[in-house]
Formats: sequence, C-alpha cells, structure tokens
Amino acid sequence: MTSDKLVIGLAGMPGAGKSAVVKVAKERGYEIVVMGDVVREEIEKRSMKPTPKNLGKMMLELRRMEGEAVIASRCIPKIEKAMEQKVLVDGVRSLSEVEEFKKHFPRFSLIAVHASPETRFERLYRRRRSDDPRNWEIFHERDARELTVGLGNAIAMAEYIILNEGSLKVAKDKVREVLRKLEEKWMK
Amino acid sequence: MTSDKLVIGLAGMPGAGKSAVVKVAKERGYEIVVMGDVVREEIEKRSMKPTPKNLGKMMLELRRMEGEAVIASRCIPKIEKAMEQKVLVDGVRSLSEVEEFKKHFPRFSLIAVHASPETRFERLYRRRRSDDPRNWEIFHERDARELTVGLGNAIAMAEYIILNEGSLKVAKDKVREVLRKLEEKWMK
Repeated sequence: MTSDKLVIGLAGMPGAGKSAVVKVAKERGYEIVVMGDVVREEIEKRSMKPTPKNLGKMMLELRRMEGEAVIASRCIPKIEKAMEQKVLVDGVRSLSEVEEFKKHFPRFSLIAVHASPETRFERLYRRRRSDDPRNWEIFHERDARELTVGLGNAIAMAEYIILNEGSLKVAKDKVREVLRKLEEKWMK
Repeated sequence: MTSDKLVIGLAGMPGAGKSAVVKVAKERGYEIVVMGDVVREEIEKRSMKPTPKNLGKMMLELRRMEGEAVIASRCIPKIEKAMEQKVLVDGVRSLSEVEEFKKHFPRFSLIAVHASPETRFERLYRRRRSDDPRNWEIFHERDARELTVGLGNAIAMAEYIILNEGSLKVAKDKVREVLRKLEEKWMK
C-alpha cells in the first residue's frame, strides 16, 4: 500500500545543521518524524538509560538484528499517521532507508545539509567552551559511526544539498527555496 | 618527507561536473593529476584494453592487492614532480586516500562537486540522445561501485561542496571562490 503524502528525508553529519532545516520545515507546515526516536523508544522499552553511547550502540544493534532499513520501517506508520500532508523525516542514514521510504511513499525526496568537518566540530564543541582534547576523539568516533552505516552515500545521492557553512539566514533561505521546489515537483 | 605544495583533492560522483572544476583550476595555474591515470597505466602495463569495464575492475583489483590508498600512493610522486606549486588531484574516492595525501602534503584540502542523480544521469546519457534502458542499469552500477569504495564518505567529509545543478557559469564562479579561499588559507 502506498501513500500520497509528500515525504522529505533529511540527511546530514552531526553538527551540519539538520535542526535549522527542521525549523524551516515546521514553519512551512511540515510534520516532523525524528528517526532517532525509534532508537530512543527501543532504549525505553528495554529500561536502559538514553546515554549517547547507549543510543549509538542500540542503533547498530537494531540494524544487525532486523536489517539496515529497520529504523525507516518503524517510521513508516508514524508518517502514515501524521495529520499533515507534508512530512519531513529527520535523520536518514543510508540508501537502504531511502529505498524503504520510496517503496511506501512515491512522493519521496532526499535532501542533505552539509558543513565542513571544522565547522561542525566548532558548532558541536567549541561554542560550549570546552577545550577537552577528548572532544576530537568523540567527534571522530561519532563521524565514523555515521559513515559506517552509510550516511556518506545518502549525502552523495541527495537530490539537493543545502550548504550551511556561514550565515544561518542564507542557509534557511536556501532551505525554503529547496522545499518550495520539491512541493512544486510533487504537488502538481 | 612532506612537501610544501598546495594540493586540492577533488571528489564527485560520475556526471557531477569534476571536469568543470578541473577547467577552472587549470585557468588558475593548477597542475592537474588525474587519479584514474594510475589505473590506465596499470591496464597498459598488463597490455589490457582500456574499456570502462576493465578500468572499473582494475580499480577494485588494485585496491584489493595493495590496499585502499594504493591509487593515492601512486599519485604522490606525480604531485611531487609537478612544476606548479598548486596541484589539483582529480578523482579522490575514499577517506583512506585523503589520509594518505594529508600525510605527505600538510597543505591538503578536499573539495567535492555535487549534482542530483537525475541531473547526473541527464548529463551522462540523455544529452547523447541515447534512450537505451540499459543506460539506467549502467548508471546505477557505476554509482554503486563508486560508493562501495567510499566516495560517499569523501563527499560527506569535504571542506567545500560545489553545487553544480544549474548554470555552468554560476558553478564555475563558485569554484573560483572556493579555490581563492583555500589559497588564502594555505598560502599565508
């Protein structure tokens, strides 16, 4: 069974600025489905603590047990239940997930948000005024985990990439333009 | 031994527009090292025919035999021998290659060029007026091979991504701006 909802998948490395895209999408009337919530729900179900480490391990564990598209599959009923016609799915991490979404939602497009590793590190750590050298290690480990599950491939295959290097206003304008183009493409 | 050359690595999916970036770099006085030439040289050495299929297989074969960074390693003497101080390396395909270059060239930056799969397919096949349905298959196989070796990860980790979706003039202006910024960063 397919759905006529307009579904936009959003991919981006940690700190690239996914939350800015989500904010603009909300303003444009999109309902947001957060893929990470699936992992959080699983953590809760097992009465574990939702530490970043546990969340990371559970993401890998779920994929190992139920396949690479497990998180996408569990998001599909959430998207179908959405009140809005337009849904943004935050946190796409692989092309298997993209394929899963495309099977259920013929009006699916993948977008990505990008910033350089330096800028992402700055956003995630330096602004918090933490100079702990362990931060670089944590940053690299997190990047490596994201790339291992296939996030790089999703970014490379995105229909649009939003560059979020400098001004937040410029990036948000760009998001508006991209969403408008996708709405035109799918809603006509 | 490290070198003081400014080395820009260029990554991009097939049809994204690497050649436009190369053209602008040449105009700005960069010497170009083509990573694919390493594969072509190996094909010649073995008296094989340089068909796209043989080139693809040889790329994978070389990596299997000598490690993921083999093509980068074989490019290093070519970069060192370059007459110009600024070198653009066309065809970076993985983070292992990036690491290899960074070890030898402290002034190394990775850039990427991006276009949507639809635009890339259009550029590679439709403009040649070929409607052969086999083209989609060949396109997907080639994309898959590029992603398998790690090209998506390289694109995700690029310092700058140049979007090459619409006007060639706009994209080329963007390339000029990116190269100018990187020259400022490394030449000061």
